[in-house]
Amino acid sequence: MLATKGYAALSAGEKLTPWDFERRDVGEHDVQFDIQYCGVCHSDLHQVRNDWFEGIFPMVPGHEIVGRVARVGSKVTKYKVGDLVGTGCMVDSCGKCESCKHDEEQYCENGNIQTYNGKNHYTDNMPTYGGYSNTIVVKEEFVLRVPENLSLPGVAPLLCAGITTYSPLKHWKVGKGHKLAVLGLGGLGHMAVKFGVAFGAEVTVLSTSENKREDAKKLGAHNFIVTKDQEQFKSAVNSFDFIIDTVSAPHDIPAYMSLLKTNGTHICVGVPSEPSKIPAFALIGGRKSLAGSMIGGIAETQEMLDFCAEHNITSDVEVIDMAYIEEAYERMEKNDVKYRFVIDMATL
Amino acid sequence: MLATKGYAALSAGEKLTPWDFERRDVGEHDVQFDIQYCGVCHSDLHQVRNDWFEGIFPMVPGHEIVGRVARVGSKVTKYKVGDLVGTGCMVDSCGKCESCKHDEEQYCENGNIQTYNGKNHYTDNMPTYGGYSNTIVVKEEFVLRVPENLSLPGVAPLLCAGITTYSPLKHWKVGKGHKLAVLGLGGLGHMAVKFGVAFGAEVTVLSTSENKREDAKKLGAHNFIVTKDQEQFKSAVNSFDFIIDTVSAPHDIPAYMSLLKTNGTHICVGVPSEPSKIPAFALIGGRKSLAGSMIGGIAETQEMLDFCAEHNITSDVEVIDMAYIEEAYERMEKNDVKYRFVIDMATL
Repeated sequence: MLATKGYAALSAGEKLTPWDFERRDVGEHDVQFDIQYCGVCHSDLHQVRNDWFEGIFPMVPGHEIVGRVARVGSKVTKYKVGDLVGTGCMVDSCGKCESCKHDEEQYCENGNIQTYNGKNHYTDNMPTYGGYSNTIVVKEEFVLRVPENLSLPGVAPLLCAGITTYSPLKHWKVGKGHKLAVLGLGGLGHMAVKFGVAFGAEVTVLSTSENKREDAKKLGAHNFIVTKDQEQFKSAVNSFDFIIDTVSAPHDIPAYMSLLKTNGTHICVGVPSEPSKIPAFALIGGRKSLAGSMIGGIAETQEMLDFCAEHNITSDVEVIDMAYIEEAYERMEKNDVKYRFVIDMATL
Repeated sequence: MLATKGYAALSAGEKLTPWDFERRDVGEHDVQFDIQYCGVCHSDLHQVRNDWFEGIFPMVPGHEIVGRVARVGSKVTKYKVGDLVGTGCMVDSCGKCESCKHDEEQYCENGNIQTYNGKNHYTDNMPTYGGYSNTIVVKEEFVLRVPENLSLPGVAPLLCAGITTYSPLKHWKVGKGHKLAVLGLGGLGHMAVKFGVAFGAEVTVLSTSENKREDAKKLGAHNFIVTKDQEQFKSAVNSFDFIIDTVSAPHDIPAYMSLLKTNGTHICVGVPSEPSKIPAFALIGGRKSLAGSMIGGIAETQEMLDFCAEHNITSDVEVIDMAYIEEAYERMEKNDVKYRFVIDMATL
């Protein structure tokens, strides 16, 4: 077994503390890489607190992980020691179902294995531990190649916030000639703006707060609407082809759907804790769709990383020390981060 | 003005009674046709009772109307006296917006004019009166040509129940290789089965009641699932590409969405009076879409009628006398009709 250092919540809702644990030895098809940076996702906080479901504790969060290969199994062909690599939200899937066969492991019908707070139920049934740690062992197929030309801290969040917004924009073929609204300007939202702009769409940020206007422009957004301003809101009715909804607090989805054109699609990538109330007329009037999307497949995540390398796209980050994590969580809850905390694992 | 006989609710919630009224004279671009049959739609009942919004009274319901042309305006080119024609849910639209330009008058951004319980706000601003009457005057562009080879009473419901299910199946390209579930086997549902089968999909009827199994088979459905049977329900999880949801009573949409495969679409064509509660996970897990669709455009309605003529498709109907309407409403509320009441207007 592989002695590993990390930060864990020892039980639900507890503060994170240093914790030593063991990972599996590097198997024939495994890659071990030493973690340089790990992004802090809002879902880390939800899971540490059991907001969505009963978690597995001790829990080492973190699923936006980048670093350099330290060791490879005897049958690994894609990576060698020293390669810059990363891992996102998944470390395994059944590999046999229709979704897996179509490179959509995120929708594996038998369940993908989460990078942390999961169990390796296709192999040794041991719990998974995430990237708030010094090293990780991952099956080759779930390791991504990280381009060398990008700022490494800014790459880490691409592995969740990036792919979560890239994948639906690609799936729904959002691009030139489309008007795209980005609802919420946080970790996910700021990536949606960057990708939307890169794909050629006309991008509008919808925000409750005027004070994000300048930031939206800097990120490349073409327009900005303060949704609390009735006049501005009304002027946007029936104007968007797509809304990408990154908000994870309860919000009035049917009201936002009125901003869609006929045949428009409202795509949820955030997960509010309460169900949304959707009247039939919000869908039927204008043949609208309310859809959801969850991260992306491994092949698509690699495609995104390569796209980012080509277009010089990274996440805007604030690099923090490991010991700052609880303060980071507090600030994240107040949306006081532009736009993602990333832990420098040298500080562990 | 044109003296007209009909049946009307004189005020909200009142029983229908004979009522004499006037229609506009036949204008240059108008077609007047004498009504032979008019279908009874569930929405007639909702509107007579102000269930959805404040109606215009006296109200003459009916938007599944067929008959023969009695007179045409001087500039009418498509129809002549004696032609078999029909009119559905709309009698006008702005003709200028993006939706109208794309032959989707049902989604007219400036509002289409309903066949009854509307106002001609593009012309004389007079109220519209529906097909529970002996004759009607309609703008040429909103008149449909009815094929001569079909049973006429069975054609009437095609103009609402037919197009309401035909249009989404065409829009989402449902056909060979697809598994389609039809939720609810009433006026809309039985047409969805017929079209789904005609388009080559594998059609499953989802019903709360075992006693519709034989009927579903007769209509052409390949499979039948009693949704209250836990075993049957579980066996259908993750199996459909599309669900067409014709239910207008409150029901648990997220539960049905669990029956969709990854990338599946749940299409609402019924209008429950209460909003549905949709948790984000029902959409995000499996990249599913919840969509709605409303009738169809005029060109598409004509296409449907021609398709029906070619494939010998009509609605299954029970022909009634005009005076039977209140009993028909009562029976309709108990789903005691296979599958649509159609009024023989000779009995007016």
